[in-house]
Amino acid sequence: MPINSRILNLMEEVRSGRCSPEEAADHIGGLRLEEIAGVARLDLGRSIRCGIPEVVLAEGKDISHLIEIMRRYVEASGRCVASRATEEQADAIMNAASDLICEYYPEARIVILSNGTEKPENGGTVGIITAGTSDIRVAEEARIIAEEMGCRTLTAYDVGAAGIHRLFHALKELGDADAFIVCAGREGTLPAVVAGLVDRPVIGVPVSVGYGYMGKGEAALASMLQSCAVLAVVNIDAGFTAGAFAAQIASGVRKE
Amino acid sequence: MPINSRILNLMEEVRSGRCSPEEAADHIGGLRLEEIAGVARLDLGRSIRCGIPEVVLAEGKDISHLIEIMRRYVEASGRCVASRATEEQADAIMNAASDLICEYYPEARIVILSNGTEKPENGGTVGIITAGTSDIRVAEEARIIAEEMGCRTLTAYDVGAAGIHRLFHALKELGDADAFIVCAGREGTLPAVVAGLVDRPVIGVPVSVGYGYMGKGEAALASMLQSCAVLAVVNIDAGFTAGAFAAQIASGVRKE
Amino acid sequence: MPINSRILNLMEEVRSGRCSPEEAADHIGGLRLEEIAGVARLDLGRSIRCGIPEVVLAEGKDISHLIEIMRRYVEASGRCVASRATEEQADAIMNAASDLICEYYPEARIVILSNGTEKPENGGTVGIITAGTSDIRVAEEARIIAEEMGCRTLTAYDVGAAGIHRLFHALKELGDADAFIVCAGREGTLPAVVAGLVDRPVIGVPVSVGYGYMGKGEAALASMLQSCAVLAVVNIDAGFTAGAFAAQIASGVRKE
Amino acid sequence: MPINSRILNLMEEVRSGRCSPEEAADHIGGLRLEEIAGVARLDLGRSIRCGIPEVVLAEGKDISHLIEIMRRYVEASGRCVASRATEEQADAIMNAASDLICEYYPEARIVILSNGTEKPENGGTVGIITAGTSDIRVAEEARIIAEEMGCRTLTAYDVGAAGIHRLFHALKELGDADAFIVCAGREGTLPAVVAGLVDRPVIGVPVSVGYGYMGKGEAALASMLQSCAVLAVVNIDAGFTAGAFAAQIASGVRKE
Amino acid sequence: MPINSRILNLMEEVRSGRCSPEEAADHIGGLRLEEIAGVARLDLGRSIRCGIPEVVLAEGKDISHLIEIMRRYVEASGRCVASRATEEQADAIMNAASDLICEYYPEARIVILSNGTEKPENGGTVGIITAGTSDIRVAEEARIIAEEMGCRTLTAYDVGAAGIHRLFHALKELGDADAFIVCAGREGTLPAVVAGLVDRPVIGVPVSVGYGYMGKGEAALASMLQSCAVLAVVNIDAGFTAGAFAAQIASGVRKE
Amino acid sequence: MPINSRILNLMEEVRSGRCSPEEAADHIGGLRLEEIAGVARLDLGRSIRCGIPEVVLAEGKDISHLIEIMRRYVEASGRCVASRATEEQADAIMNAASDLICEYYPEARIVILSNGTEKPENGGTVGIITAGTSDIRVAEEARIIAEEMGCRTLTAYDVGAAGIHRLFHALKELGDADAFIVCAGREGTLPAVVAGLVDRPVIGVPVSVGYGYMGKGEAALASMLQSCAVLAVVNIDAGFTAGAFAAQIASGVRKE
Amino acid sequence: MPINSRILNLMEEVRSGRCSPEEAADHIGGLRLEEIAGVARLDLGRSIRCGIPEVVLAEGKDISHLIEIMRRYVEASGRCVASRATEEQADAIMNAASDLICEYYPEARIVILSNGTEKPENGGTVGIITAGTSDIRVAEEARIIAEEMGCRTLTAYDVGAAGIHRLFHALKELGDADAFIVCAGREGTLPAVVAGLVDRPVIGVPVSVGYGYMGKGEAALASMLQSCAVLAVVNIDAGFTAGAFAAQIASGVRKE
Amino acid sequence: MPINSRILNLMEEVRSGRCSPEEAADHIGGLRLEEIAGVARLDLGRSIRCGIPEVVLAEGKDISHLIEIMRRYVEASGRCVASRATEEQADAIMNAASDLICEYYPEARIVILSNGTEKPENGGTVGIITAGTSDIRVAEEARIIAEEMGCRTLTAYDVGAAGIHRLFHALKELGDADAFIVCAGREGTLPAVVAGLVDRPVIGVPVSVGYGYMGKGEAALASMLQSCAVLAVVNIDAGFTAGAFAAQIASGVRKE
Repeated sequence: MPINSRILNLMEEVRSGRCSPEEAADHIGGLRLEEIAGVARLDLGRSIRCGIPEVVLAEGKDISHLIEIMRRYVEASGRCVASRATEEQADAIMNAASDLICEYYPEARIVILSNGTEKPENGGTVGIITAGTSDIRVAEEARIIAEEMGCRTLTAYDVGAAGIHRLFHALKELGDADAFIVCAGREGTLPAVVAGLVDRPVIGVPVSVGYGYMGKGEAALASMLQSCAVLAVVNIDAGFTAGAFAAQIASGVRKE
Repeated sequence: MPINSRILNLMEEVRSGRCSPEEAADHIGGLRLEEIAGVARLDLGRSIRCGIPEVVLAEGKDISHLIEIMRRYVEASGRCVASRATEEQADAIMNAASDLICEYYPEARIVILSNGTEKPENGGTVGIITAGTSDIRVAEEARIIAEEMGCRTLTAYDVGAAGIHRLFHALKELGDADAFIVCAGREGTLPAVVAGLVDRPVIGVPVSVGYGYMGKGEAALASMLQSCAVLAVVNIDAGFTAGAFAAQIASGVRKE
Repeated sequence: MPINSRILNLMEEVRSGRCSPEEAADHIGGLRLEEIAGVARLDLGRSIRCGIPEVVLAEGKDISHLIEIMRRYVEASGRCVASRATEEQADAIMNAASDLICEYYPEARIVILSNGTEKPENGGTVGIITAGTSDIRVAEEARIIAEEMGCRTLTAYDVGAAGIHRLFHALKELGDADAFIVCAGREGTLPAVVAGLVDRPVIGVPVSVGYGYMGKGEAALASMLQSCAVLAVVNIDAGFTAGAFAAQIASGVRKE
Repeated sequence: MPINSRILNLMEEVRSGRCSPEEAADHIGGLRLEEIAGVARLDLGRSIRCGIPEVVLAEGKDISHLIEIMRRYVEASGRCVASRATEEQADAIMNAASDLICEYYPEARIVILSNGTEKPENGGTVGIITAGTSDIRVAEEARIIAEEMGCRTLTAYDVGAAGIHRLFHALKELGDADAFIVCAGREGTLPAVVAGLVDRPVIGVPVSVGYGYMGKGEAALASMLQSCAVLAVVNIDAGFTAGAFAAQIASGVRKE
Repeated sequence: MPINSRILNLMEEVRSGRCSPEEAADHIGGLRLEEIAGVARLDLGRSIRCGIPEVVLAEGKDISHLIEIMRRYVEASGRCVASRATEEQADAIMNAASDLICEYYPEARIVILSNGTEKPENGGTVGIITAGTSDIRVAEEARIIAEEMGCRTLTAYDVGAAGIHRLFHALKELGDADAFIVCAGREGTLPAVVAGLVDRPVIGVPVSVGYGYMGKGEAALASMLQSCAVLAVVNIDAGFTAGAFAAQIASGVRKE
Repeated sequence: MPINSRILNLMEEVRSGRCSPEEAADHIGGLRLEEIAGVARLDLGRSIRCGIPEVVLAEGKDISHLIEIMRRYVEASGRCVASRATEEQADAIMNAASDLICEYYPEARIVILSNGTEKPENGGTVGIITAGTSDIRVAEEARIIAEEMGCRTLTAYDVGAAGIHRLFHALKELGDADAFIVCAGREGTLPAVVAGLVDRPVIGVPVSVGYGYMGKGEAALASMLQSCAVLAVVNIDAGFTAGAFAAQIASGVRKE
Repeated sequence: MPINSRILNLMEEVRSGRCSPEEAADHIGGLRLEEIAGVARLDLGRSIRCGIPEVVLAEGKDISHLIEIMRRYVEASGRCVASRATEEQADAIMNAASDLICEYYPEARIVILSNGTEKPENGGTVGIITAGTSDIRVAEEARIIAEEMGCRTLTAYDVGAAGIHRLFHALKELGDADAFIVCAGREGTLPAVVAGLVDRPVIGVPVSVGYGYMGKGEAALASMLQSCAVLAVVNIDAGFTAGAFAAQIASGVRKE
Repeated sequence: MPINSRILNLMEEVRSGRCSPEEAADHIGGLRLEEIAGVARLDLGRSIRCGIPEVVLAEGKDISHLIEIMRRYVEASGRCVASRATEEQADAIMNAASDLICEYYPEARIVILSNGTEKPENGGTVGIITAGTSDIRVAEEARIIAEEMGCRTLTAYDVGAAGIHRLFHALKELGDADAFIVCAGREGTLPAVVAGLVDRPVIGVPVSVGYGYMGKGEAALASMLQSCAVLAVVNIDAGFTAGAFAAQIASGVRKE
């Protein structure tokens, strides 16, 4: 049952006297807002509920603030992901948190900190495809997030530029995927091509490559939204959202 | 295995002499293009492969042409859906195809023609929510398509304007849903609200209501794409795409 | 104290046994969502809390649905406002609710239904100014809403085209205003002019008049947002929002 | 009486012979233009009239020019604010005006110079909230301006990312606020959330964070303008305008 | 001396006692605002000062209101122009003001009402050129305004589509023009062509013809603004502004 | 030699005294401007030079004006094409020019008037393809123009929706084409698909179908311009330009 | 007579045998194109015809190429202006052309090279006004060009920020101006203010200052085009065009 | 026959047993996708089919990856083009591939690597024209590609700024061209001018020069698409596409 039952539990605690009305009122305010309107994406309760890792947007944060937040999350849930991290931030985190396990994925711009807690596993598989090499940084962000959420990932990168045979071959292996992420810039037609070849949901990710009129992923966004193919779309370069959305799909797929 | 094996089968038929090289070459050209680039969405092979109903865009088509296409599809696969149909078109189809079973959903602007063939059933459930009453026409289009693809649907319409209690209550019932479709116009925040309350994938559908700056669904599209919540998006008013995408998700979900 | 204390009260009722945890949980879900994310603007609790009248967007609603909602609101709080109502809708409401008191303001496109309950009064005054005659319909919407929320209103319409003396004279009378609403289309400079002449807050309302490049209120919106004057802005043609916002300001102003 | 009475006074001086018609004509031209069309925001008369501090846009000004203007204002009214000042400008001002009192707020990019004259006090309170840490620089600009105009400020920063409990707790303290400023980037929904929780006016400030489609504050602006909640909006990153507007509201609020 | 001397005169009247300070203060407020910020375009003082006719925007005005304003202007200055008048409005004016002289120019959508007062004459000449026939309605609006302001006009319409020889021949006659107005839609290159052939100022008027990308005059506006030729531009379809601006130029040209 | 030699001829005539300098100067002005800057597209000299038919834009022209122009062109060059003609205009032309031969193509919105002069023939072949049925009206406009310019045309319409086999089969027949025109709305990918299958130039024509974000051909234009395929593009719905451009290509192709 | 008579002269030379038909044909091609479509702005014939200085766009040109072009122009017409020159380019020109007279205006980014030939004088006066200090660089570009074309200039800079009294006083001196250039960024209202105060033509120049929505001069452009005041506009930051256009106006004004 | 016959050949090989069904199925998947949807532009089969050189987008690729791809292409087809290469990349390629022949065109940002295989020759001629010097980099990219595809090229650069006589003279030489490429920024009118002077197809290339409203090539794109002249367009700065498209035209032109 996805809708959380914490309010009901809290009521029980109030009734039983384990919790005062004041404490409960405070807690409810926090709980509910926390889940609403997207402002509370990183709250500590999330990973407990649904296996989504704690994700901190590193971009623009100063190092000490960043490390403090990440440590707090690791204490609460064992693992924490920092997205859009610069190399400087990654180095600083590694140095400052030498007591923890730190993984750095430069292409994905992601740093993962953990106290040894393993990633969850849900048996789902996400297939990730890119049209060109410039799209890989976005695909990698999606991949790390999907894996942190417990999915296996299969990738086929640069299927446009460096030999289309790889797509066909990769699609055979990716045939096991429960959801597909397809990243493409310029006119962004690859997601629709893939959607015509597979039976599972395809998420299009416009990538900010391409110059001139509607360049930088805008034409790709437009053509994915206008596509006749059955396709859902995320924001330009939104690897995190694509990865988490695909993992949500994949985590629920039945395997007979 | 989603990647179709028809090419291999055809090769076998060529090798065994059941099919001439010329016939096979022709067939392959057709087959492959059919699946590629979204131009072949309505081809007759689709419903056989993955349970997607034949869908004809009625908008702008003249009646006789429309009926002819629909009859062809019904003959091939038992059922055919016409989307964005006017009342005039619906009446004309009903009159002209009195030998077939005809259902008309005016709010969804959909006409379904069948020869008695039943919809498939895949055990998946799609939850559909709208912010206001103006969003219902888009939600209904999504609902009919999801049902034609074999899903059960649960709906909670107008949860913003006509009593929010319905959302909370409905979310309890919709708790069984394997995927959610949330339709909203103006600033379009409801999909993010729902995405914060449920664990299953949420598809945001911007609806062309709202006036002034970025009205007609544009602000809704922008805020869904920019949302911090995990959310995928389809084109403004794209009920069909949302319904089919959600059904793809739901059809694969395991039920233990 | 603007933050409502209902949650705390509810807790007390749970603790005292007057309310079961289940009832409270349900109620809290409803209460809280009701106030959050703007989706619950018209909920029945609003007028009790802060004197905002029940407002129903008539646009696009069918007559019977509209009347039913309005009746429900009148029963709950004594008065109900329908905005963006067509003449047909106004006539239908008047006929169908002959047992209630019905006021129709064609220029504002507003219908007010009441059971005799009077508007509140808060002692605040809102000054409303328009540049031209085409802006009056938007100004009138703002005026009715501000009055429904308990404010006195003072107006000076068409101060650009039909005699600027009226602005100067009106500004003297409007000098008592606690907040100003200034509606203007085309290049939309009047709000900044007024903001330079008065000491109280000025809300600019871009109006969808003007043709050609950035016409229909877009240039007005842009120039109000870019203005060096101290000015806040609402959406193009958003008379309702401007009226309610100004009334919120005016209702709190001290009068020594 | 907000409309200034200087013209009338001047007439009296002309009539009494204390001022020649030529001098008066000149003066009137200056006076009136000074107040009109927003071009005269920084004129020396403003702080005398309504307690708005002298504000100089430091951005793009060379140091000596900037210091000269600020000194002139301090002489005239005791205090002067320079906004959007670089660190280099701040240092230069501090060095060049060592005879005056200089405060530098790096996050707000504001330098305040004074001859010891105290800020005014008007008993009003402005509550300032940000969704994330990137929004703080804009919020701080608003805060300093509001304080310069005589208001007390209460802040709750980063309520989205670093613990939503702070919003709820802060809203209790901020409950005393007479007006609220809410800064948010990306999809910009926090202002509408707050507007649903408080009874006083809420000013939304879109912040130029977020990438991809309608990033850099544009989606936030659009969703605030389209919002169903009662909300007024200022330009993207316009901390100064938001602070001054909120102070105008707060300065007039009655306190029983 | 373009800066008007009315303020000085008024001072004299105050000093001499012919006018009280209060009356003067009121009057000054009116006078000055009247001239500032464009809000006072139609004020009664204008035609006295600089020969600009009274112009009323008929669009959207109801008949009785329109006639009343026009009569008032005719009384004050002898002549009045109503722009963007529908045929219905024109007929109504003619019927209702049968005691006055009424001219109706359907293509220009202009009605002129006068009590027999003649147009001024200033000896200036305005040349008006259109690329196609669709541009003529805008050109005619410009022509009538320029003539009302005392200029002679010379026209060459449809020089693109219906025989280019007319441009060359017309340019010979138009050689006497002191300023040129060139109206063009689609890609809007004709103004730059003319600017390369004549020595006098050329005003480009983008016209809302053309379909597809940047149609309806937008591409024309863009290409005129980007043009390497020396060219000034007015809003799309802004015949009135072009005519009045050209007349301002032409009225000052010396003729030796 | 494409650059016309008329100027040289004229010089000879001046030198020989057959033409006065004045006549020549006039003529040159006309000639040259006629060919420059696109303003002279319909001048009478064009069909003599390069076999382009006289084309009159009927849209917005009144009947008598239209007929007069067409008659003039027929007299000069034997044939005249009116594009974007309404049914009413077509009927009126047919009635008014019963002495001439009149062909009306309602889907292409084209009327052709001739005195029996045959179309030219240049041996070139243009292939025209549409994605859907809504694109046919644009394709037909292109077809008539290409044929009027002397080309044979081959068409394959609705290859997306009504059986992809037709594309493959049609491409075999269209294999003889010297240039291809491909019309598509929505995401507009078909031109790129065709460009990947043929060796001759492909001209993409975005068609104003599709709803929502960047609908009405805008996404199609963007994706064609951003396409990695070798593709040139014309304006949205610009059947005339596509047809004439393709005919220019085809008319020059060598046939061994 | 602005239309040039060179073609006729050339004809005479052909007739008289002083020039061969071939030479004349070549020459005419050059002459005419030179004047058409704006591509020939910098041709050597211009300064002879109408006193416009030779202007070379320095931006992006390499030094040696730039110097070579400027030298060529100086030889032909005595003076040459390089616009948008960097300091490096200015230094290089000064060093490389030490035999010529070189003036460098860093704010206007203009370098003028001459062989001692004086600027023309036409007795016209151009008034130039800016709203803020950031607008001065654009105003200075306009000023230098207007002076090079023979006009006297009068300036009033920063009339918004540094004391509005300067506008009023300056307008008295600028009262002699035959044309006004008003530069403003952000909401760009100053041109309309000035247009309400003077009787001579006012050219608005949007300046690329201002941040957020429609910043960088876009809101200024929009509000100038939408303005009710009589105003013509040039491109954002187009100081050159404004200066040359104003000089064209001023050069023709009669002075009795 | 442009449509490739490889599928038929493959079928023959399957039937004859020279190829297994599995191999053929794999191969077909590769072949077909390779040609479809533009994603496979650089596949190794292209140069064999139609003389298009292998082109690798160097932009954003790391050196070793780039060299590896280029070597692979040279092995397969003898020559390889890298577009948008930086000087660093060019140097690195030259050093790393000293066994091959390396040409570097800095203005075109192109590196060509070959094993001595000569360019093809097809007897076609492409004329390339630019309005200014800033457009040359785009024109040069087009030129190299057209030459690599076997065409002769004729160029006329900077015909606007540095002497229009060059256009007229160059057009005589370019008179032999079978297709024209015209590159222009700002208002982009030169392509239409050329299209009016020549009988062969003209491809307009908008170039990203120009500032202010619709600068950076956007106004040029708009005016080329809206042009009345017969003109096809490619993306802003798309030299590669223009060169390849023109070469496709030119390669097929008959020469009698």
